[in-house]
Amino acid sequence: MLLRREAQAFRLPMAGPDDASGLVALVEDGALDPALIVAILGKTEGNGCVNDFSRGYAVSALRAALGRWLDAAALDRIAMVMSGGTEGALSPHMLVLAARPAPPNAAPGPALALGRCVTRDLAPYEIGRPAQIALAAEGVRAAMADAGVDEPETVHFAQVKVPLLSAAQIAAGGTAAADTLKSMGLSRGAAALGVGVALGEIDEADAMAAAVGAAPLWSARASCSAGVELKGMEVVVLGMSPAWAGPLRIDHAVMADGLDTDPVRAALRRLGARFDGQLPPHEAARVRAVLAKAEAPRSGAVRGWRHTMLDDSDISATRHARAFAAGALAAQIGHAALFVSGGAEHQGPDGGGPCAILYDASDKDSQ
Amino acid sequence: MLLRREAQAFRLPMAGPDDASGLVALVEDGALDPALIVAILGKTEGNGCVNDFSRGYAVSALRAALGRWLDAAALDRIAMVMSGGTEGALSPHMLVLAARPAPPNAAPGPALALGRCVTRDLAPYEIGRPAQIALAAEGVRAAMADAGVDEPETVHFAQVKVPLLSAAQIAAGGTAAADTLKSMGLSRGAAALGVGVALGEIDEADAMAAAVGAAPLWSARASCSAGVELKGMEVVVLGMSPAWAGPLRIDHAVMADGLDTDPVRAALRRLGARFDGQLPPHEAARVRAVLAKAEAPRSGAVRGWRHTMLDDSDISATRHARAFAAGALAAQIGHAALFVSGGAEHQGPDGGGPCAILYDASDKDSQ
Amino acid sequence: MLLRREAQAFRLPMAGPDDASGLVALVEDGALDPALIVAILGKTEGNGCVNDFSRGYAVSALRAALGRWLDAAALDRIAMVMSGGTEGALSPHMLVLAARPAPPNAAPGPALALGRCVTRDLAPYEIGRPAQIALAAEGVRAAMADAGVDEPETVHFAQVKVPLLSAAQIAAGGTAAADTLKSMGLSRGAAALGVGVALGEIDEADAMAAAVGAAPLWSARASCSAGVELKGMEVVVLGMSPAWAGPLRIDHAVMADGLDTDPVRAALRRLGARFDGQLPPHEAARVRAVLAKAEAPRSGAVRGWRHTMLDDSDISATRHARAFAAGALAAQIGHAALFVSGGAEHQGPDGGGPCAILYDASDKDSQ
Amino acid sequence: MLLRREAQAFRLPMAGPDDASGLVALVEDGALDPALIVAILGKTEGNGCVNDFSRGYAVSALRAALGRWLDAAALDRIAMVMSGGTEGALSPHMLVLAARPAPPNAAPGPALALGRCVTRDLAPYEIGRPAQIALAAEGVRAAMADAGVDEPETVHFAQVKVPLLSAAQIAAGGTAAADTLKSMGLSRGAAALGVGVALGEIDEADAMAAAVGAAPLWSARASCSAGVELKGMEVVVLGMSPAWAGPLRIDHAVMADGLDTDPVRAALRRLGARFDGQLPPHEAARVRAVLAKAEAPRSGAVRGWRHTMLDDSDISATRHARAFAAGALAAQIGHAALFVSGGAEHQGPDGGGPCAILYDASDKDSQ
Repeated sequence: MLLRREAQAFRLPMAGPDDASGLVALVEDGALDPALIVAILGKTEGNGCVNDFSRGYAVSALRAALGRWLDAAALDRIAMVMSGGTEGALSPHMLVLAARPAPPNAAPGPALALGRCVTRDLAPYEIGRPAQIALAAEGVRAAMADAGVDEPETVHFAQVKVPLLSAAQIAAGGTAAADTLKSMGLSRGAAALGVGVALGEIDEADAMAAAVGAAPLWSARASCSAGVELKGMEVVVLGMSPAWAGPLRIDHAVMADGLDTDPVRAALRRLGARFDGQLPPHEAARVRAVLAKAEAPRSGAVRGWRHTMLDDSDISATRHARAFAAGALAAQIGHAALFVSGGAEHQGPDGGGPCAILYDASDKDSQ
Repeated sequence: MLLRREAQAFRLPMAGPDDASGLVALVEDGALDPALIVAILGKTEGNGCVNDFSRGYAVSALRAALGRWLDAAALDRIAMVMSGGTEGALSPHMLVLAARPAPPNAAPGPALALGRCVTRDLAPYEIGRPAQIALAAEGVRAAMADAGVDEPETVHFAQVKVPLLSAAQIAAGGTAAADTLKSMGLSRGAAALGVGVALGEIDEADAMAAAVGAAPLWSARASCSAGVELKGMEVVVLGMSPAWAGPLRIDHAVMADGLDTDPVRAALRRLGARFDGQLPPHEAARVRAVLAKAEAPRSGAVRGWRHTMLDDSDISATRHARAFAAGALAAQIGHAALFVSGGAEHQGPDGGGPCAILYDASDKDSQ
Repeated sequence: MLLRREAQAFRLPMAGPDDASGLVALVEDGALDPALIVAILGKTEGNGCVNDFSRGYAVSALRAALGRWLDAAALDRIAMVMSGGTEGALSPHMLVLAARPAPPNAAPGPALALGRCVTRDLAPYEIGRPAQIALAAEGVRAAMADAGVDEPETVHFAQVKVPLLSAAQIAAGGTAAADTLKSMGLSRGAAALGVGVALGEIDEADAMAAAVGAAPLWSARASCSAGVELKGMEVVVLGMSPAWAGPLRIDHAVMADGLDTDPVRAALRRLGARFDGQLPPHEAARVRAVLAKAEAPRSGAVRGWRHTMLDDSDISATRHARAFAAGALAAQIGHAALFVSGGAEHQGPDGGGPCAILYDASDKDSQ
Repeated sequence: MLLRREAQAFRLPMAGPDDASGLVALVEDGALDPALIVAILGKTEGNGCVNDFSRGYAVSALRAALGRWLDAAALDRIAMVMSGGTEGALSPHMLVLAARPAPPNAAPGPALALGRCVTRDLAPYEIGRPAQIALAAEGVRAAMADAGVDEPETVHFAQVKVPLLSAAQIAAGGTAAADTLKSMGLSRGAAALGVGVALGEIDEADAMAAAVGAAPLWSARASCSAGVELKGMEVVVLGMSPAWAGPLRIDHAVMADGLDTDPVRAALRRLGARFDGQLPPHEAARVRAVLAKAEAPRSGAVRGWRHTMLDDSDISATRHARAFAAGALAAQIGHAALFVSGGAEHQGPDGGGPCAILYDASDKDSQ
């Protein structure tokens, strides 16, 4: 008989970018075997843009902390995806995802399935171009294989951490972007197109021919964030699979804009949640993670009313968009320890973005 | 027989701080008699902090535009309350409030009632101190008298625009604050205490003895914003009165924090709105204005999760808080043309704030 | 005999963007005839980027103030060039330039000569493209004619205020820039190329074929700034002419980078100044204006040391560059009431910019 | 015979906060014995304010890099003083100071002498109060003893890295500051008063009775910077001593404001430099380090002209001040790899600050 796996998800507060104490405590308490960690997704408190060192600092601290139990090769296998920017009341935290052999009494599946892949490094000239699209698609397929998920439609979330160009690389010439901030968008966009291709949402030929960042193509399940601290791409795929067991479930919604929470309400109800307005505490406790993308509509308006995010030279539009969507989602969920990430190029429609929810259906399985 | 009055409320988009074209069009179209304007509340697209000139620019443009019809004395009687900061998707707009003789067929009251008062100028040494508290209370009472509202409990919103200290005034000594940003908070806080006194929410002796900005006293109906462009205080009071007629109603909620929208849902339902998640378009169209305050909790946490708003040296906490609460409210209302104003010292509990809603109950009156 | 003209230059502090009181006082005191004003150059305290309303606010206040004496047509003839951004210790101030008939006893020329031109409006699709280059060149030639300056080499400074694209115009398509901040750079760059063409520094065919913002072509005497408040271009030319009289002189230097003040020292000495380190007070008093451009080198380094201006997502590179060059120039001149303007595309070499100095040689003429 | 010591100073570029590669190369090349490092002063590219993690990240990277050769106790003995904020063209770099036994042929002293001390941790309630003043004075005396410098007047620079309060500590009550940014200023100020006491510049009783941050007392040789990454104070003292040998010299100037470079010119000439305007390259090469403080004058003006640094709610005044003073100093020295640190409370006069220069007098000793 095939050994089933069970996904574990831990949401841990961070007192600073270098705070790995919660993770260490989990391991020391025996709640988590560090060798089974698949991915760590973190919201860190930098600006989420070019000069955000909180991401690299967090990765550095996580590696140092886990280095007590894992060697460098094992550390390299963990996808560490730090997304900068805790605007509004967003709370710095990490989501630790692990896969363990399912205990005999585990609730039967289908259940949350996890897979990962770290791609080769990208050359500066590849960033934001078809080579990155193809590599991202390849990475998603590899992560699906790692998860044992065969059907693209059962993937609900594909997180890709991508590199960006430095000013020095741009100055050296031949790159797709003329400034570093722009390169973040192109890199996220190319990766999202790759996700869409791998998940059957976007035609491969269309993606390869697309103007990255401008073409009206998008994935409803891609979430890409850029960071200065890596050169390849880190892919984590979350889906539902009968080969996995346990109480965790995942579903997703597409928000048409930052305030479009009705699809999120529908997804919560599909997952089994019951509520009128905000989730009551016992339902909020079941929501193990909310993973969403936010961005400012290029149209310059939200629901017909002009916004000023793209004209603000003091605060990056990505920061405005995260704070706003965070408020919308927090009002639904009941707190702001949410993984809301900015820059949603080709990730959902213009101005909107995907939102995936991890839900613990423990008591409800037997209902 | 006593002549009844009817309140009018117009929400107009602004293409920039100096855009008074919507207001001019209203007058030229005959929809609004400029002589009947009581107040203009605007959200303008500056930083909402010390060096936000979008507020003064807007007032200057409004006065120039209305100067075609009104003389200086008439202009001075209009309370022009510009609140800077359109973070997130908040949309620059103005809310024009007018009071006209009720037409004979106007729906019977009680209905929305309006009153206003412009106080004397404050001396620099009075700002943030008991003298300002007393003057604000006096201003609220005068505005209530102007509205014909006798009962404090029927007041649902008291907007006070307050001055702040300049660096030069601070350098001259004797002021309550040592920097300009701090002076904004003290000035808002003193005015809010004055509102609380006038509305019977705060004991007068307690208010006068309170450490402004620190004491745990608050009004559930005060909304104060600070601007460099005035020296006195401008008070606008909104309440319900049987002496007023027409379809407009007002109610208010107190949000315990920026994501606390369940009280807002309850207020909407009290006003007659029917909805499950977000307001459907026909209900959203009835909401003529949402007037809310937002601020970052001094505790450093929201619902037990650490926030970073007060530790961010790049973006003022008031900007974070507005963007976040705007997202929460917009997700409920259905758009972001909301008057969300920052800095809620003594305006609602720490980290939260009042939220007033103007609602057009036209069709529902006969139900 | 030909009537000689004499240039007047007044440097006036501004207490805020809307402070025209210094100008009003000059007129009321009889020191300035408002009908003779050629141009007003102002440094206002906004961010100098897209959403800087301090510029439009200042122009609005200046027009209102001068409206006591001048009609709309006369106001339109005054080039009002507000440059936003008073980073570091830069002081908000205005430079009022006027041309009066030279009194009989005026010191003989050659002396400072002034000319101006306001071009037709630019269509959105023209901004940053050859049409703008050609129109700017035409505007400079018209301003030279207005000044009575025939020889391009006697022009020491050509200030051009240019429009930028709004988010709405970009969304409508067909524009050279994909975002508003980018459009500011392209618009400044195209105007600078036009100045270079008119002054014989850049070959016309090269300019028309150039990639605006990227080609290694530059003018040593162009200074361009962008503002949301105009649609055409306002050109002011400053040069030396034998047809003008009086004590004012102008010369210019090219700074290779923001700290390259030795050429400025040389220009000061050419103008007659005597000093070792910083200008002593009696020499500083002779310097009536310093007009300089500053920008961050695209190479990513200054004198071989990496700078971080282009990687900073919190503060625009133009703001960093202005603050830094302001420090360098202020240390030479002795104060920071300097017109340092950011964004020096095609205005001096990459990372550097022109610097013009107005100097009162009164006592020295007879030496 | 007494063994003489020789100070070594290395200025190394940093490609990012975590870049210790230059230091590693120095050690691997045999140019530096890591066991002899006294202090590492770094300029890192964060905002230099509360949420600047570039400082802690740099310290973490330095400790990891040096951990190849030094144990934790040895690492703890190195004062690592990271000052955030590379505004303008300031270049991220580190200054490594080491003390080695003087080789027999070393140039005779007096020469640069180094000493250090790490104090005990401060309790939150001590920060910004007399306890911190006394502890800082004690730390300076201990560092002087470590350097073998007995005479306070031969100390030219005392760098103190100080802790700040977190939002959580402030919320817990009993602290001197009500917000984190304010706590940075009080902590720097208290340490500077302590330096002044130890160096005989400030009367001890006056310091203890002083309103920290407001009293008109200052040290001409203190430089204090605050960081979230430490709880005690790290003191490094630089002076001239006959017990030290080698070519390095130190002198200092006091700048009355950010553009006051004439005293710096005088100090350079005292050290032996010859120049007219900017230092020529062969003189710039001798300047091994420039250590300066910058701040915005609380008076609101520089040389009688209003500045806007204290009224800017988008950019912290410390960032403005660093960028501006950096420009002034870079224009004198010839590059911007300068240790300009913000927040000069009690470090030099209001709006000004000390500036120390390390100079290599190698060839000139024999002149």
